Amino acid sequence: MTEYSRTPVTVIGLGSMGSALAETFVAAGHPTTVWNRTAAKAAPLVERGARHAATVDEAVAAGPLVVTCLMTYDDTREVLAPAASVLKDRALITLNSGSPAGARDMADWAIGHGARFLDGAIKNVPSAVGAADTLLYYAGDRGVFDEHRETLTTLGGDTVHLGDEPDLAALYEMAVGGTLLPALVGFFQGAALVQARGLPASTLVRFTVKWFEMINSVLPVFASEIDSGDYSEPASSVNAFVAGIPYDEELGREANLDVSWHAPLHELLRKAVAAGYGEHSVSALTEVLRKPEPAA
Amino acid sequence: MTEYSRTPVTVIGLGSMGSALAETFVAAGHPTTVWNRTAAKAAPLVERGARHAATVDEAVAAGPLVVTCLMTYDDTREVLAPAASVLKDRALITLNSGSPAGARDMADWAIGHGARFLDGAIKNVPSAVGAADTLLYYAGDRGVFDEHRETLTTLGGDTVHLGDEPDLAALYEMAVGGTLLPALVGFFQGAALVQARGLPASTLVRFTVKWFEMINSVLPVFASEIDSGDYSEPASSVNAFVAGIPYDEELGREANLDVSWHAPLHELLRKAVAAGYGEHSVSALTEVLRKPEPAA
Repeated sequence: MTEYSRTPVTVIGLGSMGSALAETFVAAGHPTTVWNRTAAKAAPLVERGARHAATVDEAVAAGPLVVTCLMTYDDTREVLAPAASVLKDRALITLNSGSPAGARDMADWAIGHGARFLDGAIKNVPSAVGAADTLLYYAGDRGVFDEHRETLTTLGGDTVHLGDEPDLAALYEMAVGGTLLPALVGFFQGAALVQARGLPASTLVRFTVKWFEMINSVLPVFASEIDSGDYSEPASSVNAFVAGIPYDEELGREANLDVSWHAPLHELLRKAVAAGYGEHSVSALTEVLRKPEPAA
Repeated sequence: MTEYSRTPVTVIGLGSMGSALAETFVAAGHPTTVWNRTAAKAAPLVERGARHAATVDEAVAAGPLVVTCLMTYDDTREVLAPAASVLKDRALITLNSGSPAGARDMADWAIGHGARFLDGAIKNVPSAVGAADTLLYYAGDRGVFDEHRETLTTLGGDTVHLGDEPDLAALYEMAVGGTLLPALVGFFQGAALVQARGLPASTLVRFTVKWFEMINSVLPVFASEIDSGDYSEPASSVNAFVAGIPYDEELGREANLDVSWHAPLHELLRKAVAAGYGEHSVSALTEVLRKPEPAA
C-alpha cells in the first residue's frame, strides 16, 4: 500500500498554515501525527486521517520528521521543551516568522538536544500549500533536506535549499518580505484615492497587478546594478523620483489622505541626491540605506 | 498601400518614452511627424521614416492626432503655446506624469483652444511600448478614444478608456503608481541585507518576483474588503503585522541598515489597533489613511 511507504510526519502547531501543511501531508498519504496546544484544532485533521498525539513528546516521538508551525522561535522552544529528550536524531523543521538571530538561537537549541535542524519559510498563503509553483525555502542541515526532499516537495513544487547556515531562510524571509507592508499601504492609499471619487477599489486591482508585473520585470536590472555597484546608466534615475515628490503630496490633498508615511522615502531620495546619485539609478538608494560602519 | 491608409500622427517630446511611441507608430506604418525642443533627438526617428517638423505649430498642423510626451502638464502647455491657434479640432493626447488637478487644468486649456482632449498614462517601460499586453489607460473625450482606438492600440494591446472626466487617468496613475517607490525601497533594503552576508542581490530576484505574484493574488480580496467596508474576516490581520514590527527593527540591526522609513508604517498599524481594527484585516489601514473631514 502506497500510503505506508510515505515517511511518517509530525506537524506541531495547527493554525491556518499548520493545518494546511498537515492536511497536505495527509492527502499525499503520509502517516501524519498532529499536536496543538488547543486540541480542538486537531479535530478536522483527525477526521481526514491524521493521528492526534496526546502530548507533545508523543508527537515528536511518533516519527523521524517533525515540522513545527508556531508563531515565533520562542514559542517553538517553549512548546518543544517537554519533548527535548526525544529530539535526538529527529529531523526538526521550523516554519515560522522570525529574525536570523532567532533562527540561530533556535538552531543552537535544537542541535544542542541532538536534533538535525532545518529552518524554512513558506512564501505563500495557506490555500497555496501543495501547489506545483508554491515556493518554500529552507536553510540548515543539507542532509535533512536531501533525505526528505520528496516529502517537503509535497508542500510546494518550488522547494529550495538556500545553504547550510541555519539562519539563511530567516534572512531571505526578511529580505523578501520587507516589501509587503509598504507595497500594501501603497495599494490601500490608492484604494482610498479612487473611493474618494466614488469609484470602487476593485477597479484598481487589474491595473495594480500589471504594475507589480512591470516592477517584477525590472528587478533583475536593479539587482545587477546593486551587485556591480554601477548605478551610472539608469532606466529610472533618482532625480526622476524626486520629480514625483510633489505628486505624492498632491495625492494627499486630492482625497484628504494622510500621506505622511511618504516623508522618509522622500528623505532617502534627497539623501541620495546629496550623495551625488541624482542622475544615477534609483537602485542607488541601496547605498543610502547602508549606515556608515561605526568607528572602531 | 497600407502605409498611407494609417492615420497620420504627430509625436511631441522625444525622451526615451516619446521616442518609443514615435518609433512604434512609424513601424506600424503611420505617417509620423515628430518634434522635440532639442532637435538632435529626432534624427534616429527620421532615419526610420518619421518627418521632423521645423516648428511645433508645423508639427501640430501636420495631422488630426497629436500625442505629447513631455515631463509635466506645465511643460506641455509651454511647448504647445506657439501652436495654440492650430489646435482647433485636433485630437490632443497628453502622456505625462502629473496630478489630477494638473490634468484638469490641462484639459481646460486644451478645450479652451478648441482641441478634443484625452489624457493618458503608459503603465510600463519604453521597451514595452507596442507589446500585446502593455497597458495604457486614457480619460477624457470618448469620441477621440473611439475614433483613434486602433491607432492607440498600436502602442499597447491593453488599451482602456477610464471615463469622460479628463483627470481619471492621472487619478489612477497616482493610485496605482503609489506602490512603486515603497515597493522598490523594500527591495533595495532586502538587497543590502543579503549583500551584508556576502550574497548577491540577484539571488533575491526570483523570490521577490514570486512574492509580488503572491501579493497580486490577494489584492482582489483586499479590494473587496475595502469596497464592502467589512474587515472582520481577515486573511492577514493588523495584529499579525504588528507582531512583525520587532523583525523590521531586527533587520536594521542584522545588517547595519537605516530602517527609519518603517516608523510611519508601524505608526499606521498602531493607529489601526487603537481604532479597534487589531483583529481585522490589514486592509483596514485604508480607513486609517483617510483624514477626518474638516469641520464645516
